[in-house]
Amino acid sequence: MNVLLTVSYIGTRYCGWQVQNNALSVQAVLQQALEKMLGRRYPLTGCSRTDAGVHARMFCCTVSTDEQANAVPLDKWPQAVNPFLTDDIAVLKARQVPDSFHPRYDVIEKEYVYRIRNSSVRDPFAAGLVYLYPKRLDEETMQKAAQAFVGKKDFTACMAQGSDVTDCVRDVKYLRVKRIGEEITIAIAADGFLYNMVRIIVGTLIDVSTGRIPLDELPARIASRERSRMGFTAPACGLYLNKVRYQDDE
Amino acid sequence: MNVLLTVSYIGTRYCGWQVQNNALSVQAVLQQALEKMLGRRYPLTGCSRTDAGVHARMFCCTVSTDEQANAVPLDKWPQAVNPFLTDDIAVLKARQVPDSFHPRYDVIEKEYVYRIRNSSVRDPFAAGLVYLYPKRLDEETMQKAAQAFVGKKDFTACMAQGSDVTDCVRDVKYLRVKRIGEEITIAIAADGFLYNMVRIIVGTLIDVSTGRIPLDELPARIASRERSRMGFTAPACGLYLNKVRYQDDE
Repeated sequence: MNVLLTVSYIGTRYCGWQVQNNALSVQAVLQQALEKMLGRRYPLTGCSRTDAGVHARMFCCTVSTDEQANAVPLDKWPQAVNPFLTDDIAVLKARQVPDSFHPRYDVIEKEYVYRIRNSSVRDPFAAGLVYLYPKRLDEETMQKAAQAFVGKKDFTACMAQGSDVTDCVRDVKYLRVKRIGEEITIAIAADGFLYNMVRIIVGTLIDVSTGRIPLDELPARIASRERSRMGFTAPACGLYLNKVRYQDDE
Repeated sequence: MNVLLTVSYIGTRYCGWQVQNNALSVQAVLQQALEKMLGRRYPLTGCSRTDAGVHARMFCCTVSTDEQANAVPLDKWPQAVNPFLTDDIAVLKARQVPDSFHPRYDVIEKEYVYRIRNSSVRDPFAAGLVYLYPKRLDEETMQKAAQAFVGKKDFTACMAQGSDVTDCVRDVKYLRVKRIGEEITIAIAADGFLYNMVRIIVGTLIDVSTGRIPLDELPARIASRERSRMGFTAPACGLYLNKVRYQDDE
C-alpha cells in the first residue's frame, strides 16, 4: 500500500527533510515514529528536500507499507503516530494513493510563503518563525519588482552556487507581496524551485526596496544568469513550504 | 520618572507575572533585564497577576526610575532591553506617564482572548499556544451561551475557590465566539476579572456546547453564585491577556 502523508513542522531544530549523517532530519524522526506505530520500518519518500531551518505547513511524503500496516485505519494515522513525535512535527492526514504515485515527480505546483517582521522590535510569538528586518520596507516597490520573476524563464541567477542542476527553467505562476501591520508576507508558486531560489528572490525584493538594486535593471539581471547580480539570500527562518499540489487534488 | 512598559510574552515557562519563591516569573526576568540595561534595580508594578502558563500579547507595567535612567531615550528602550531577555519575552513600547499613574488601578478595561484548536490533530505551530479540544464544538451554541455572561453582575460562580476577593461584581462588556476553520477564538472584555474567571467561563461555554450544561439554565446557574454549578476550568495554555485599556489611550 502506498500511503501519502501530509506533514507539518517547525524546521528550526532540523537539518531539513532529508536524512543526513550526524544531523537531525525531519525524515529520520518521522520514520522512527512510524516504525513505533506500525511495528516495523518502511521507506519514506519526500516531495522535496527542504533546507535546514525551513518550516513546512504542508509537506508531503509517501510510505510504502505491506498488509501488516493495515491494523490502523488510515484516517486514524495522525492520532496514532503523533504521540511518537515531538511537538514541532505533526502528521495532519494520511490517504492511499496508487503504487505508481511519486510524491516528488507528480507535483504540479508548490507554494512557498516567506514571512518578514518589518520592525525593530521582536514578537515573542514569532521567535524563529519570521525574518526580523528593522529597516522600513516598501511593499509596493517589492510587489512591482515581483512581477519580473513571474513566468516561465531561466532562473540560473536565482540558484545557489554549488548546485548541479542543469535545467534551470521554471514556471513561476505568481509572486505576491502583502503587508498586514508590521508583517510582510511573500507568496510564490511555481512548478518547481531551484536550490535557495525563494530565499534569493526574497533577498532581491528587499534589495530593490532598499535601493541596492534598481527596479528597472531587474529583468536584465535575471536574464544574465549570474548569481552575483541578484540580492542576498534571505535567512531560512522566514521560509515555509505552504502547499503542494498534485494532479488528483480536489 | 514613571515609565509605562508594554510587554508581550509566551507564558509557558513561567509561574505567571508575579514574583514567587522557587519559581520563575516574568516580573523577575524583566526586572533583571532592566537592571542590566539601566545599571541599577528599580521596582516594577504590573497591571495584573497572570496565572502560570497564561500568555500576554499586551501586558502593562510601570517602572519608577531616577535621572540616571535617562541615558537611553524612551523610544529606544525596547531595542535596549530586549537583548537581555529570552526569546519568549519582549518589551514592545515604553512611554512616560504621570507619577500618579497606577498600571493596575487605572485600568478601564482588559480584553482576554482564548484560543481553542477544535481538532483531533495538533498543529506544530500552535504547540502550547492553544487548547487542543478534539470533540466537535458548536460555536453558534457557544455564542448564545456567551450572552448570559454579558453585563454588570455578580460573578462569584465564575471565581476559583480559595480567592479572598469579596466584591465579585464585574462588568463584562462583550464576549464573542468566532470560528475560523479548526480554530475557535473567544474574546472577552470587562472592567476587571476574578481569579480564573475567563477559564471558568470558557469551560462553561464548552460544557454548554457538549450538552453537559443546559443553555436555558445558564442565567440561573450564574446567579446561584456557586462555583460547582459552572463548567470546568479550561487550561491556561489557551489564554492570552490581549489588551489593556487606560483612560488616556488614543
